[in-house]
Amino acid sequence: MASHSGIQKGPASQSLPVAALRKPRILVAACGCLGAAKFGQICCSFAEWAEVKAVATRAGLFFIDRATIPNGVQFYTDQDEMSSWSRLGDPILHVELRQWADIMLIAPLSANTLAKIAGGLCDNLLTCIIRAWDYTKPFFVAPSMHAFQWRNHFTEHHLMSLDELGIALIPPISTSHMGDHQTGAMASLSTIESAVKVYYETRMLLGSSNAKQEV
Amino acid sequence: MASHSGIQKGPASQSLPVAALRKPRILVAACGCLGAAKFGQICCSFAEWAEVKAVATRAGLFFIDRATIPNGVQFYTDQDEMSSWSRLGDPILHVELRQWADIMLIAPLSANTLAKIAGGLCDNLLTCIIRAWDYTKPFFVAPSMHAFQWRNHFTEHHLMSLDELGIALIPPISTSHMGDHQTGAMASLSTIESAVKVYYETRMLLGSSNAKQEV
Amino acid sequence: MASHSGIQKGPASQSLPVAALRKPRILVAACGCLGAAKFGQICCSFAEWAEVKAVATRAGLFFIDRATIPNGVQFYTDQDEMSSWSRLGDPILHVELRQWADIMLIAPLSANTLAKIAGGLCDNLLTCIIRAWDYTKPFFVAPSMHAFQWRNHFTEHHLMSLDELGIALIPPISTSHMGDHQTGAMASLSTIESAVKVYYETRMLLGSSNAKQEV
Repeated sequence: MASHSGIQKGPASQSLPVAALRKPRILVAACGCLGAAKFGQICCSFAEWAEVKAVATRAGLFFIDRATIPNGVQFYTDQDEMSSWSRLGDPILHVELRQWADIMLIAPLSANTLAKIAGGLCDNLLTCIIRAWDYTKPFFVAPSMHAFQWRNHFTEHHLMSLDELGIALIPPISTSHMGDHQTGAMASLSTIESAVKVYYETRMLLGSSNAKQEV
Repeated sequence: MASHSGIQKGPASQSLPVAALRKPRILVAACGCLGAAKFGQICCSFAEWAEVKAVATRAGLFFIDRATIPNGVQFYTDQDEMSSWSRLGDPILHVELRQWADIMLIAPLSANTLAKIAGGLCDNLLTCIIRAWDYTKPFFVAPSMHAFQWRNHFTEHHLMSLDELGIALIPPISTSHMGDHQTGAMASLSTIESAVKVYYETRMLLGSSNAKQEV
Repeated sequence: MASHSGIQKGPASQSLPVAALRKPRILVAACGCLGAAKFGQICCSFAEWAEVKAVATRAGLFFIDRATIPNGVQFYTDQDEMSSWSRLGDPILHVELRQWADIMLIAPLSANTLAKIAGGLCDNLLTCIIRAWDYTKPFFVAPSMHAFQWRNHFTEHHLMSLDELGIALIPPISTSHMGDHQTGAMASLSTIESAVKVYYETRMLLGSSNAKQEV
């Protein structure tokens, strides 16, 4: 369900299963790229006003210090998808997490996971959640990649595919390296948090006059 | 070589290297999804009237109880591709299996392998066979995925790519879960078996008046 | 940046950061396919007139005898990408190699890596270099695959994508097997070497009257 929004706008046509009595449930995920070094901080900032569960790809784990994930945040990896299932009828973790979440955020999103989403591949916990995602629920991505990769023509192609899916882009920022300005670094934590929070609060206001429960 | 058939029809324009003196050779494969729990039964039902060889992906092995694979069915995994080759001139397993088979069936087909086929990726024994497949020979797939994944727009896109290749779809079925009807579960064993068998027997009849050997 | 060249032509619109005082720097890479058994020889022949660094995928290592890589050639694998980075600010190997090289050559290129390039996937050292590549610098590929795979319709689709990127194809050759001529084997070492060398020497001549430094 395409939002027809510009790439940098929020997913304006989407609605939240807002329950006024509880905090929003945000599923935050990290891929294997430099931005993942800040993943603990991202989880912390969202945990202040939301229920947070976290997912990381195998490559993401390389950059994440698990000690930085706050105590109240459950942290899932591919291993958990395997170990939580043993026979037909058991719950499937990627389905459970997709159901649980009101909002999804991938921060950072790597060039490789970007390509997988654009191609519909689903070979790990994160991409299985995405392949099963309910696109009436908001979904944000904050890419993080080297400027050389960001400039590559695949980036634009793949971001257009994500836009058609209704995924909202939190664009990377320009940084200065030896006098050379280059784009590709993940947006600041405050930009990421406010993009999601502003969207959520706007929907809450709308939701209070037009509430409906969706699954 | 597109068959221009509707997605649910058999690969009508294709022909079998039918040898009246021997049973048909069917290569049956399983991917990593819930339907793979029935893979032993699938192998058994085909082994009653055909020569069967079986292939599973690494993710498929997670769901398969190898004790359920019948004795007469050779079972191959990625390890066999590696261990059967040691120097130039040695046979290549995915080429041997592609040559051996009259018919190919993937039951179950996962969302991820569906995406790999649609993208031409070939990173394991199964997808190497597919990338080298002779599309004048019949090729059936029986998808198995959660209803959330089946409804995703990538499913339709990818199935259109498979249809262009001439691959015949055995559609998933609708199941009831707490009063909610959802589509995605693998077709029944009898549906899968009869789809392949009816096609084979029809070609046998045609073949007896119009036999030709193809490689 | 498409070169609009025919598939088999060199990347004519591209320029080299030619420094007359030093040898050209060639990054040579191998994927997992039979042609990789000759990778040591390829490295040797280029090392006679160029600075050479070598990269192999995990599947490529299966076919490569590391003892055949000449002493002066640094050889990199996915492990080196991991082990060379430990904290923010550390150099990133795929970026370093992309910066270092004047010319890139993948010989052999497998069907799977061909598909990954065409899809913009980057899940290992080699494909990360490619995803970050500066397409004003020449990039050659010499595919190696079974004739069954070469004839598959994905091959043409994917090669068209590579042509749009400006990657030059060194086509596979036809070999005779039991009287049957089939195409797919990697071009001869002399063909590969001369394709790159002729291109380089032509650019050197042009470069001496029209030198410019690019990054």
